[in-house]
Amino acid sequence: MPWNKVVDRAMSHWMEATGPHSDVVLSTRIRLARNLEGFPFPHMLSEGQAAEVIRKVEAGVREIDKIQVPGVVSPVELYRLAEIPPLARQVLVEKHLISPPLAQDARGRAVAISANEAVSIMVNEEDHIRIQVLSSGLDLENTWTLASRVDDALEEKLTYAFHNVRGYLTACPTNLGTGLRASVMVHLPALVITGQAGRLFNTLGQFGLAVRGYFGEGTDAQGNIYQISNQVTLGRSEEDIISNLNGVAQQVIEHERKARDHLKRQMRAQIEDRVGRAYGILTGAHILSSEEAMRLLSDVRLGVDLGLIPRVPVKVLNELLVAIRPAFLQKTAGKDLGPFERDVRRASLVRQRLAA
Amino acid sequence: MPWNKVVDRAMSHWMEATGPHSDVVLSTRIRLARNLEGFPFPHMLSEGQAAEVIRKVEAGVREIDKIQVPGVVSPVELYRLAEIPPLARQVLVEKHLISPPLAQDARGRAVAISANEAVSIMVNEEDHIRIQVLSSGLDLENTWTLASRVDDALEEKLTYAFHNVRGYLTACPTNLGTGLRASVMVHLPALVITGQAGRLFNTLGQFGLAVRGYFGEGTDAQGNIYQISNQVTLGRSEEDIISNLNGVAQQVIEHERKARDHLKRQMRAQIEDRVGRAYGILTGAHILSSEEAMRLLSDVRLGVDLGLIPRVPVKVLNELLVAIRPAFLQKTAGKDLGPFERDVRRASLVRQRLAA
Repeated sequence: MPWNKVVDRAMSHWMEATGPHSDVVLSTRIRLARNLEGFPFPHMLSEGQAAEVIRKVEAGVREIDKIQVPGVVSPVELYRLAEIPPLARQVLVEKHLISPPLAQDARGRAVAISANEAVSIMVNEEDHIRIQVLSSGLDLENTWTLASRVDDALEEKLTYAFHNVRGYLTACPTNLGTGLRASVMVHLPALVITGQAGRLFNTLGQFGLAVRGYFGEGTDAQGNIYQISNQVTLGRSEEDIISNLNGVAQQVIEHERKARDHLKRQMRAQIEDRVGRAYGILTGAHILSSEEAMRLLSDVRLGVDLGLIPRVPVKVLNELLVAIRPAFLQKTAGKDLGPFERDVRRASLVRQRLAA
Repeated sequence: MPWNKVVDRAMSHWMEATGPHSDVVLSTRIRLARNLEGFPFPHMLSEGQAAEVIRKVEAGVREIDKIQVPGVVSPVELYRLAEIPPLARQVLVEKHLISPPLAQDARGRAVAISANEAVSIMVNEEDHIRIQVLSSGLDLENTWTLASRVDDALEEKLTYAFHNVRGYLTACPTNLGTGLRASVMVHLPALVITGQAGRLFNTLGQFGLAVRGYFGEGTDAQGNIYQISNQVTLGRSEEDIISNLNGVAQQVIEHERKARDHLKRQMRAQIEDRVGRAYGILTGAHILSSEEAMRLLSDVRLGVDLGLIPRVPVKVLNELLVAIRPAFLQKTAGKDLGPFERDVRRASLVRQRLAA
């Protein structure tokens, strides 16, 4: 599949909302940081070495298809980012397939993406290899299993930098050891509305978990969507890290559901009003900022989950999370758009998708 | 028709929006103040005299039906207000069939209403008789003709207090002479949005015209609806007063239409956004205050007039002007409602009517 195809569609596998607990958990992500033995970390690589790392990873990626790793939808294709224009790279960021730093400086960098976009492998980001697996709903064990299989397949062709005590060596010490970051993307409107979110996040910090906004580190929580992930990668087994996050996620889900139940029972009219207005504005507006869209889509999602707006499929809401982003709008338009033009196109897109 | 029937329906004849210039002018109203010879003005009437005035007017009203005044939809029925409960009287106010003072103190007062509610005759308000005729759109001549015929029919049975120099005698000197107040109810959203309304209203004052809010004297302009009427009743003929107001109304219409055209051509996206959001909120909200409803219904009306929301009939919007009022909502509910319950019922009613 040419990169154009990946960039042209908003829909990825994880958006299908078929996974467990999809009413609260949008997606599960496993990320593994790996580096090749015998090469400096990416920030020290020469141009030639960077190209060689890419070639080596490319061979590993071919191995994934060759041995047909169970759960990976073939083919997995590798794209050199220098071949992809900046706007299209930005779309890959909006689709959570690559990180913002990888998009910013494309030289000597690459990404491999599986056909259903569940697996992506960044090359020469902070580490030589960043394996990422995205799944729908809360599905940490299966996602971890899949990531681990991809990791094993790559290792058939590659030799990782590994230390018997420190584990996998990484460019930044915060990733040492397992190189594992597990995270869940959760939608917590009821906890926010009822004012319980802040306290919960403090508690999560005490469990060694980090809470971030929708676009990861340093971003705000747009649309009441939060990313919860492990902070510590060293000194604990992968299974421990995952089981800890899984247990906490179950509790977060429980809290959010209780809060939703409370809203529905105690503040029925107010919550119907809130989600009804949000749906009304989204289906009526002709100028829509990204922030307002995220806020109103969160309300509509809550309405869908509470059974108040039955006619909107969750996958449409998931797809819109990507489709309303600036780069995606411009890619679809086939040209650069100013902020006002984007707001007009965003409104038009949202009206169309919600009416469908 | 029992008074219950009048109170149970929101729809009056003038709401059909069939009259000329219905895009800007909601309704035309002619009001004639008359008093009977040989009786003190109402505020000085004894109980017995008040009852006698009512009986006399009742005879006059029967005459209207008997001689079948052209344009009056029979029967015209007289109701003693003391027989109508306070909430139902308030509905008559909301339907513009009686004035707030008439509803407040029902003793010794009455109102006669024609079958299509175009003609109403208040008895023992500020004057013994207040003839009111309401028409759809801008239709001053015909409305005046009809009021005049009703006046003549009443005079078959009644002797008016009339002075050769001062004309019709009235309780308040501001109504002396013709006793005529002609008014048009206009919807001026584009002049308000473009900031031209204030200047226009100043100019109208210089033409001897008063500008009031939707509910007449001392009320705010809710939903960009204004009542324009003559100030002076003395020293000018009825034809002069009417032709002056007519000329001014034509110019106001012209100004409003130009402003709408400007909005549509120069601020297309903004105005589509505004009316689209208003429609969306009205079809989605579950809690709706009277003020917000009036404001949003004004936006929707503008959208309908600009052809941006073709599916909402203007008569529905006109009917809602009455149907969303507090007393009407409570009458429909069959019980007293607190402000919150009214807001919930109002939202429900609006959703229902706009979806129909």
